Amino acid sequence: MKPYVEMTKEELQELRKQLHVQYKEFQGKDLRLDMSRGKPSTEQLDISMGMMDVLSSNDDLTCDDGTDCRNYGVLDGIKEAKELLADMMEVAPDHIIIYGNSSLNVMYDTVSRSMTHGVMGSTPWSKLDKVKFLCPVPGYDRHFSITEYFGIEMVNVPMTPTGPDMDMVEELVANDDSIKGIWCVPKYSNPQGISYSDDTVRRFARLKPAAKDFRIYWDNAYTIHHLYDRDQDHLIEILAECKRAGNPDMVYKFASTSKVSFPGSGIATIAASQNNLVDIMKQLKIQTIGHDKVNQLRHVRFFGDIHGMVEHMRKHADIMRPKFEAVNQILERELGGLGIGEWTSPKGGYFISFDSLNGCAKAIVARCKKSGLVMTGAGATYPYGKDPRDNNIRIAPSYPPLSDLILAMELFALCVKIVSIDKILKES
Amino acid sequence: MKPYVEMTKEELQELRKQLHVQYKEFQGKDLRLDMSRGKPSTEQLDISMGMMDVLSSNDDLTCDDGTDCRNYGVLDGIKEAKELLADMMEVAPDHIIIYGNSSLNVMYDTVSRSMTHGVMGSTPWSKLDKVKFLCPVPGYDRHFSITEYFGIEMVNVPMTPTGPDMDMVEELVANDDSIKGIWCVPKYSNPQGISYSDDTVRRFARLKPAAKDFRIYWDNAYTIHHLYDRDQDHLIEILAECKRAGNPDMVYKFASTSKVSFPGSGIATIAASQNNLVDIMKQLKIQTIGHDKVNQLRHVRFFGDIHGMVEHMRKHADIMRPKFEAVNQILERELGGLGIGEWTSPKGGYFISFDSLNGCAKAIVARCKKSGLVMTGAGATYPYGKDPRDNNIRIAPSYPPLSDLILAMELFALCVKIVSIDKILKES
Repeated sequence: MKPYVEMTKEELQELRKQLHVQYKEFQGKDLRLDMSRGKPSTEQLDISMGMMDVLSSNDDLTCDDGTDCRNYGVLDGIKEAKELLADMMEVAPDHIIIYGNSSLNVMYDTVSRSMTHGVMGSTPWSKLDKVKFLCPVPGYDRHFSITEYFGIEMVNVPMTPTGPDMDMVEELVANDDSIKGIWCVPKYSNPQGISYSDDTVRRFARLKPAAKDFRIYWDNAYTIHHLYDRDQDHLIEILAECKRAGNPDMVYKFASTSKVSFPGSGIATIAASQNNLVDIMKQLKIQTIGHDKVNQLRHVRFFGDIHGMVEHMRKHADIMRPKFEAVNQILERELGGLGIGEWTSPKGGYFISFDSLNGCAKAIVARCKKSGLVMTGAGATYPYGKDPRDNNIRIAPSYPPLSDLILAMELFALCVKIVSIDKILKES
Repeated sequence: MKPYVEMTKEELQELRKQLHVQYKEFQGKDLRLDMSRGKPSTEQLDISMGMMDVLSSNDDLTCDDGTDCRNYGVLDGIKEAKELLADMMEVAPDHIIIYGNSSLNVMYDTVSRSMTHGVMGSTPWSKLDKVKFLCPVPGYDRHFSITEYFGIEMVNVPMTPTGPDMDMVEELVANDDSIKGIWCVPKYSNPQGISYSDDTVRRFARLKPAAKDFRIYWDNAYTIHHLYDRDQDHLIEILAECKRAGNPDMVYKFASTSKVSFPGSGIATIAASQNNLVDIMKQLKIQTIGHDKVNQLRHVRFFGDIHGMVEHMRKHADIMRPKFEAVNQILERELGGLGIGEWTSPKGGYFISFDSLNGCAKAIVARCKKSGLVMTGAGATYPYGKDPRDNNIRIAPSYPPLSDLILAMELFALCVKIVSIDKILKES
């Protein structure tokens, strides 16, 4: 096929008729496909079921240091869990706190605390006239929801193949002290699957923010979520790099085992400098007596150590890899060379990002929905749900079984074609 | 023995010598006893160990409605858990939200949200010049820590044998719109073990607060934590009573299974009116994707229903009852009639409250500590840690084994005697 823009009006109209016949066929199938969120599949959940067996009534639920995990206490997490997650986070165990089940909750609480109590002694953000966050776009909708909820103004920063546009980031944070943070998913980013280059990470660590309470919100959600055994992205560890650059307190690093063990029943963690951890603990000791240590112990007993966790992630990869490859193959087969869409081919994470012709994303997602395929809402990858070019769509291949996914992507590609033709015809 | 105040100076001095010999004997025993917190004993934790067996890798972790508890979703709790905890809370399932592991965390988040976003559309408290909470005293130190952390001014309200001084509560909330809340532990209160009378609950429900965003923080921590099978305190259900009184939105009710299953690994809940729940959910959907549903299911499978939970609480009672009775017997035997202390005899909960002669509590706790017995810090039962009469001490009998508890209470009584004599002699 030649690019659509090189086709005549008549060719496009004829093609559209054929595509519409195919579309009607899809509608007749009464599909119910959900690709809206980055949810693990049932098959993936099954590989963690051994977690249900590692603690039984015959087991001693005591830590090496004598802590009874069944009782109150230990605010920052049991030693064994800190070691395991510190290895996952690539930091020392004394640089992390273990939380409850959700890193999103930790991020929310971090922003909330900054609103009410400031950051390491700074003015509480709620007392300031204006607070801004930089938001690399496209990005993660739940990040943007947090900052929007707190009335924080979000400033779009374009993503590039090596990470956020660092010229823009450097310029903005250096000259505007109302900019207090930036949302980052530095590895296998949501939704593009981009990993920040070494140069990008180094430039992050060397930022010279006008605001002393500026923090990088480094959501390393996909730190061990590779698709391949060898062909993996590597990310410079940001805490150490910030320390080397003389900015030890500038970053909070977040992660959880949500997509390692069970979403919603995993354990979350923050890694930060001692100064930041002291600041956080001042609040945490008021907020709770402690998190779920039995679940921490369950994770430790199940994974053993970071090697066990990495081996476990290979099982996830074995399930995820064919799905990512299928998406890529179908898009390539159906849309390759047509000039109506581009997409990423990540080596890990949970998402593939699709860029349609400008002004087509909403229409594509709506058309998919009409025939039973729910995609992430168009616009969701931008602050306030506003994609200025209306061209970005997040593809989440994880949840449907492979056979459904193939069907879904064929339908998706078909919708892209139809909507693109409509747009080209309209503008011709 | 006759009351100390009726003894001559010489008699007291002679008695003091004898008591000091006993005290030295205690010091020689090198005791390490901790009665500082309301922690369940190891024996109590053991009775819940069956929880570790109810979910195995052979089990289906799916709810009746098809929800896979292992995956993301269901923000307000699985249906089965809502039914179980609704019965525990004595409300309908659609009036509750299931949270994570800590009701304290829920209370913190509730205050925090009110600071940043107000209550059902009211001005965020952080934008107000002054926010106050009423604090029935003596009360729970962790409640006071939350309000202190947010810079909320705490106003002491004396407890009476039927609950807080309601004349004072009514007067204050009706005339001061900066009063936004009151901390209550209405059943087997912390630390006195007092349950609010029917009249007190009715007066609470009929409050006419000047502030529309005034809320009763009803921490029903010990709702099913009775010591006896029949001789139980009963509390009028506050949500229903507020609704009947035309104040449906005036109360948040909190509880958890921390002292039912495992502290730190239980499930927490809030009960409130639909209006309040809608307000809460607006925030909750930003804060998290959902709480730990596997643990919710674990609780449901273990307890079955409220009857199972109540039967389970009888096992706790069988362990707690002898401890409460021992404390009462030793205090009666050692201090009865001496006029140097009064204490409560609760029918449930986790604490006994001891009132010494004025100005003696700190000295008693300090003297206990010197001989190896750690009590809750004197003053902890008052906002800002300031007990104006320095006479209240919280006794937490749950954690030590009975034999240790007996020793601890004998030592405690001895310290009370010595410190009381010192005070009487000093003032004579």
